Amino acid sequence: MAEFMTGMKRTDYCGDLRIGDVGREVTVCGWVQRCRDLGQLIFIDLRDRTGIVQLAFNDKTDKEIFDKAFSCRSEFVLAAKGVVCERSSKNSEIPTGDIEVVVSDMRVLSKAQTPPFEIVDDTNTNEELRLKYRYLDLRRRPLLNNLMMRSKIAKVARDYFHDNGFVEIETPMMIKSTPEGARDYLVPSRIHNGKFYALPQSPQIYKQLLMLSGFDRYIQLARCFRDEDLRADRQPEFTQIDMELSFVDVDEILEINEGFFKKLFKEVLNIDLEEHFQRMTYKEAMKSYGSDKPDIRFDMKIQDISDLVKDCGFSVFTSAIENGGSVRAIVAKNASSVYTRKEIDKLTEYAKGIGAKGLAYVRWVDEPNASFKKFMSEEELSAIYERLGAEKGDVILIVADKNSTVLSTLGALRLVVAKRLDIIPDVFKFLWIVDFPFFEYDEESGEWLAMHHPFTMPKEECLQYLDTDPSKVIAKAYDLTLNGVELSSGSMRITDYELQQKMFKALKLTDEEIEAKFGFLVEAYKYGAPPHGGMGIGLDRVTMLMCKADSLRDVTAFPKVQNASELMSACPAEVDDESLEVLGIKVVNKED
Amino acid sequence: MAEFMTGMKRTDYCGDLRIGDVGREVTVCGWVQRCRDLGQLIFIDLRDRTGIVQLAFNDKTDKEIFDKAFSCRSEFVLAAKGVVCERSSKNSEIPTGDIEVVVSDMRVLSKAQTPPFEIVDDTNTNEELRLKYRYLDLRRRPLLNNLMMRSKIAKVARDYFHDNGFVEIETPMMIKSTPEGARDYLVPSRIHNGKFYALPQSPQIYKQLLMLSGFDRYIQLARCFRDEDLRADRQPEFTQIDMELSFVDVDEILEINEGFFKKLFKEVLNIDLEEHFQRMTYKEAMKSYGSDKPDIRFDMKIQDISDLVKDCGFSVFTSAIENGGSVRAIVAKNASSVYTRKEIDKLTEYAKGIGAKGLAYVRWVDEPNASFKKFMSEEELSAIYERLGAEKGDVILIVADKNSTVLSTLGALRLVVAKRLDIIPDVFKFLWIVDFPFFEYDEESGEWLAMHHPFTMPKEECLQYLDTDPSKVIAKAYDLTLNGVELSSGSMRITDYELQQKMFKALKLTDEEIEAKFGFLVEAYKYGAPPHGGMGIGLDRVTMLMCKADSLRDVTAFPKVQNASELMSACPAEVDDESLEVLGIKVVNKED
Repeated sequence: MAEFMTGMKRTDYCGDLRIGDVGREVTVCGWVQRCRDLGQLIFIDLRDRTGIVQLAFNDKTDKEIFDKAFSCRSEFVLAAKGVVCERSSKNSEIPTGDIEVVVSDMRVLSKAQTPPFEIVDDTNTNEELRLKYRYLDLRRRPLLNNLMMRSKIAKVARDYFHDNGFVEIETPMMIKSTPEGARDYLVPSRIHNGKFYALPQSPQIYKQLLMLSGFDRYIQLARCFRDEDLRADRQPEFTQIDMELSFVDVDEILEINEGFFKKLFKEVLNIDLEEHFQRMTYKEAMKSYGSDKPDIRFDMKIQDISDLVKDCGFSVFTSAIENGGSVRAIVAKNASSVYTRKEIDKLTEYAKGIGAKGLAYVRWVDEPNASFKKFMSEEELSAIYERLGAEKGDVILIVADKNSTVLSTLGALRLVVAKRLDIIPDVFKFLWIVDFPFFEYDEESGEWLAMHHPFTMPKEECLQYLDTDPSKVIAKAYDLTLNGVELSSGSMRITDYELQQKMFKALKLTDEEIEAKFGFLVEAYKYGAPPHGGMGIGLDRVTMLMCKADSLRDVTAFPKVQNASELMSACPAEVDDESLEVLGIKVVNKED
Repeated sequence: MAEFMTGMKRTDYCGDLRIGDVGREVTVCGWVQRCRDLGQLIFIDLRDRTGIVQLAFNDKTDKEIFDKAFSCRSEFVLAAKGVVCERSSKNSEIPTGDIEVVVSDMRVLSKAQTPPFEIVDDTNTNEELRLKYRYLDLRRRPLLNNLMMRSKIAKVARDYFHDNGFVEIETPMMIKSTPEGARDYLVPSRIHNGKFYALPQSPQIYKQLLMLSGFDRYIQLARCFRDEDLRADRQPEFTQIDMELSFVDVDEILEINEGFFKKLFKEVLNIDLEEHFQRMTYKEAMKSYGSDKPDIRFDMKIQDISDLVKDCGFSVFTSAIENGGSVRAIVAKNASSVYTRKEIDKLTEYAKGIGAKGLAYVRWVDEPNASFKKFMSEEELSAIYERLGAEKGDVILIVADKNSTVLSTLGALRLVVAKRLDIIPDVFKFLWIVDFPFFEYDEESGEWLAMHHPFTMPKEECLQYLDTDPSKVIAKAYDLTLNGVELSSGSMRITDYELQQKMFKALKLTDEEIEAKFGFLVEAYKYGAPPHGGMGIGLDRVTMLMCKADSLRDVTAFPKVQNASELMSACPAEVDDESLEVLGIKVVNKED
């Protein structure tokens, strides 16, 4: 049986000891990372969350202690007392490498079986096994550090918003299911058989109500739930730094959040972000980057050459324009050696895979070599090169199609090419996307649909176009992006009952639909509502980017895999009949 | 339609303005609490979360603004700009009573219908209506303040534990259902039809795993869920300040939590708590207070008089003792005038209602008048009075029964009497209950059952009795109580695989039960476990006590009522067939 701790109170963390501690008697606790038995000498690397320190046992060590050290294996848990001494052979690769603890007393607090994989920073063990033994995987330094950083990020967030007058309020987790957005996770009620709670997709409705109550500034690090098929960067439950502010307009919301990120990056990564984050309209983002979350760490903007080619002899170009589309291009500088003919063919396949009909290109090794040169005059070609600022060594990629396809294809190619050319600087580049259109024209139904939730406020000066020209109505909505990743989405909300009714009408909602979907919330706005807006920041994504982690799983303590199960506890699982009986439900369809 | 905010940026909160601000031009925003129209003068009390300020409109006010002021009604939302002036007639009852804002510009940001009840501090409106319009009820100062205080409590908690090296880690909300403890809320899986997640009753398993991973000190303000029938002081979801520490023993856990509460009460209420909280063994608490969460703000201890009466002529006393029970008493000092014969009869009924067969008493007005005097000699009676320290003016209450009934009855009477006599001082009195027995003897089954979860560590010196004398095994478990309310429960955990197996055996669990109930957790302890323990503090209860609120509903933003429904959104609710179909479940029993 293992020994107990009494009388062995820890004085220091392993990773904190330095040359300045030499001569001190310390007690350290932790896991055995490694034992080295040199006959008369034993060295044990002891690990805790702060780092590793070397324990030394030598010919002066009490025999009983020496024997205990001899019996230690990887992942045994120890408490060791001893004097910090300067090492004879130092290790400059770890912060404690100048010293060692010469042990005078030691207890084996817990023995350990050989773990199913070695606890090392870089591991080749497949993720499935590591997730099954998540508690062991979390011992690995990269994951441990990620979660420590996540904790710090959350702390800075709470401090900052608290210091700016925000009140943290916990909104309920068992709420009413709404037929909006993604699919809800449902919770059957035992007391009210046949009825269900839903887990919140976000605290949206509650935070709006808190503004109506007068809390003025609300913050919550809120768990949110979405029952969707998981992509690489999704988890069924995730955390949002959720906020709402009263008596403000868009500018103040953006400013206060810029302040947050500046403080966050300074405190956690010691990085000074720009004084003001760049803002870009949705229109400009789509036009120049083919994306509503452009990565602006590099240029390579999309440029329109439709006017230059509208009368050329290349029917691919001319017919795209005639059909209301366009011809646009990106220029990959100095890419001609990387993008050989073969590599460009791969890009063409990629472009086709995401909806383009094809890819025209110019590869300029010594002379510009355009894939479409036989259809154009030298003057026409020169005009294109001049417009695009293309030079020797460059590659031009051109797409001709309807506008949405041209932009989305070039937007995607831009990212692929930049990654391949390795031209993306390792910086954090924030960008606000503003002035989102309020309505989106649905080509299939021929109707204008809301791009945001129907409580989103239009810009005052656009209200006049609500009935006459939906395309001109701009929403007071904004996204925050970082390095091409959407971190946050927000808007000002409609607080005027009459305007809200008008918006519902513009969205062609019937009274019944309004009541069913938004019932008590609409009612709430009758009793005096302050102007308010807010946003929610994806804490998991922020953490992932700040940790430079590859996956949300690497910044989530106990993540679920793609099929929404947790491998360690084997959840979800079957439950007993009695549990279902009291809920008044029955399983009618079982997974194979 | 309402007006917009542009150009009316708030400079100050209403409740912050003071005589020192006189002469400043300010812009305030808020809700109309009250309008007074004095013909040439209009006064509006404007309310925000900080308090109320008076807006003044007079004969110098622009006519358009004056007319707007005239049109205002309760709960309209305004932004008002003006100069802070000293009032001619001051109001000493509010902090801003020395000044008013003489308004030069004003916007009506939102009109308001007459609310279903008036927004005032003291309300007679029934709670059901207030819960339906919770967003209006939260405008009332007491509720608003409670939730602001809750936010502050949470902030202090996070700061304190962060400063003491704790890492906040979010554990999952959709976990595996365990057949332990209260009933789980279940979440059917769409991807794995027929399988279910459970909402966590606490993060117990995950926090233990985090210790195995080496996070060393974990904290989380964790939402917990229990599907129980609700009592007055329960909510289906509640929040726990949940923690776990490695490489410590009980003392350090208690000390760090005393530090927390001292800081909390100082920062939030400016109250200095005692340097060290009193500790009491479970045995002493039960013996002297008949409760494992005694209110020690007043004395009135339970005293044993069995030895004095074991041979008396009163068979109620003697037979209780003969049957292994006892005769015990409490003395209510100076209670004889409050506790008339009739009032004592009511106490007797109360005692019977909670399981006692009856109540013997002595009412000492001028002379001691014992309900059982005809069965005893003067000497016997005097011995009792002397033992109990009873004097003229006192009332003695005596219960004779088996020990558990005697103690629980007198423990309950003690509280009832103290409340009635109004002798409980208005202080905060913390008390640790320690040295809980490990096993509880179940009279029905004749077996020793675990009083705590089976991972609770026994005291080292008791391990020898595990097989031989379960009654002597003391758990390393501790509760924290405040004024007779249990705030927290915790323990050291077993980290030794062999000891754990031994404990399972002592609890008569089969290997199959161990695997089914604790499977992967038991496995996890094979790979090196640090000594660790922790506790969870009920945030809602702490807040309720600190706010001196009557109910958890008064410290929860959007509470549920006794039948676990939320009146505002009418949840839980029915959902559409498609939603159930994809989950592979069917409702087979509907609430009427």
